[in-house]
Amino acid sequence: MSLSALEAIRIVLVGTSHPGNIGAVARAMWTMGLHRLALVAPVEFPCAEATARAAGADEVLYRASVHAELIDAIGDCTLVIGTTARERRLPFPEAMPRAAAARAVEAALAGTEVALVFGRERTGLTNEELDLCHLHVTIPTNPAFRSLNLASAVQVVSYECRLAALDAEVTAVSAGAVDAVHDPDPLASALDLDRLQEHLEAALVEIDYLDPDAPRLLRRRLRRLVSRLGLRTSELAILRGVLAAAQRQARLARR
Amino acid sequence: MSLSALEAIRIVLVGTSHPGNIGAVARAMWTMGLHRLALVAPVEFPCAEATARAAGADEVLYRASVHAELIDAIGDCTLVIGTTARERRLPFPEAMPRAAAARAVEAALAGTEVALVFGRERTGLTNEELDLCHLHVTIPTNPAFRSLNLASAVQVVSYECRLAALDAEVTAVSAGAVDAVHDPDPLASALDLDRLQEHLEAALVEIDYLDPDAPRLLRRRLRRLVSRLGLRTSELAILRGVLAAAQRQARLARR
Repeated sequence: MSLSALEAIRIVLVGTSHPGNIGAVARAMWTMGLHRLALVAPVEFPCAEATARAAGADEVLYRASVHAELIDAIGDCTLVIGTTARERRLPFPEAMPRAAAARAVEAALAGTEVALVFGRERTGLTNEELDLCHLHVTIPTNPAFRSLNLASAVQVVSYECRLAALDAEVTAVSAGAVDAVHDPDPLASALDLDRLQEHLEAALVEIDYLDPDAPRLLRRRLRRLVSRLGLRTSELAILRGVLAAAQRQARLARR
Repeated sequence: MSLSALEAIRIVLVGTSHPGNIGAVARAMWTMGLHRLALVAPVEFPCAEATARAAGADEVLYRASVHAELIDAIGDCTLVIGTTARERRLPFPEAMPRAAAARAVEAALAGTEVALVFGRERTGLTNEELDLCHLHVTIPTNPAFRSLNLASAVQVVSYECRLAALDAEVTAVSAGAVDAVHDPDPLASALDLDRLQEHLEAALVEIDYLDPDAPRLLRRRLRRLVSRLGLRTSELAILRGVLAAAQRQARLARR
């Protein structure tokens, strides 16, 4: 499924030190269907290490744009979301990745350009860069170890964008006509299950496991078990076959 | 905030080829507060490259356990979640990462051990390994590029676990203090289920239902059925009793 919302969302990396990280970012974003990458003042690019780490997502690298300043990479965007690990001193709209992704997809579907901005490996985005963003997003991390890898941060935010885009797609489809999906192995019906239960009880009596005069508690436990299995038609047929085989043995034993 | 649910959730890596990936996984999981790592037949471990890529999460590596077989790493778990990129032929409970994480945290808070299992870099988990899992999870990816890095997959699932644990914390706090509930009839462990499966196969051969030389598909269907039932300890005892009764009949018939 091609998700049109993702076409309007770009990933912007600012001042990346290690070219390997640029490649890993390309791979991370393209697994989630994002392919527009903009690099602001990368320390080294292009670079063989970046291509190696992209592991097949090198098309994303070839098409990446390179800029001197952040504003050049985001100038045409109407929604710019900056990532930050730090607590900000100045009050600023902050969001979790899920809410930020929903905003990004909503804006993209409305026909505007969106940027998700990630800072330097060690120091993140500067205050000046964060001030160019309309929304800040912080990925929740372990307070004892906040050292999220750059590609991992892009992975998490891109994953949330893909989910938000899928959600938007589903909403659009369910608003229109949907063909019923044919399941080749449907769930067994209540009637089938009832018959299985009867077969089970008869077989258990025949193999001397169940005393027909005993209290009904065991029978009820079995019924509950059968009911909650969510058996498929094919599985029900297997169980019926097993019961029949056990009954044959019991009849042979009684001869 | 220390999230107690995450203490009971372990990450299991099966047959990892590149030690660097083991280190990157340690870093990914620890940023999200998960610190229990189990390695099944890693190609190379311990290894300096793993420690380098862990980038400060090396404590996770030092404490990692190493096992020969998957069952050794998950035997005590009552919820085993396997990750897979593939479409399965046999019907099986499949979940998105978010739903799987909610299940994992719920089980962890109920006091049981939980495993999240990740397969080999190129080939993932084998069918036999997936059959040991109670739930399969698939990370939604771009159909044109499904090549999710191992550490990225762990990152996404761990991130969802952290969010689910944060959610649970908020819910628990708002509901007031809750003592852990002791379940008088807990879920059967993975090891118990493995033994039930062996008993089942032996009994089916004895009652002439299963041909020991026949193709393995039926056996795999049965294993999947057993894995996904969510059997309680008491139910497992009932099924064991039924199998023993069927075997007695078969032995009588053969006299």
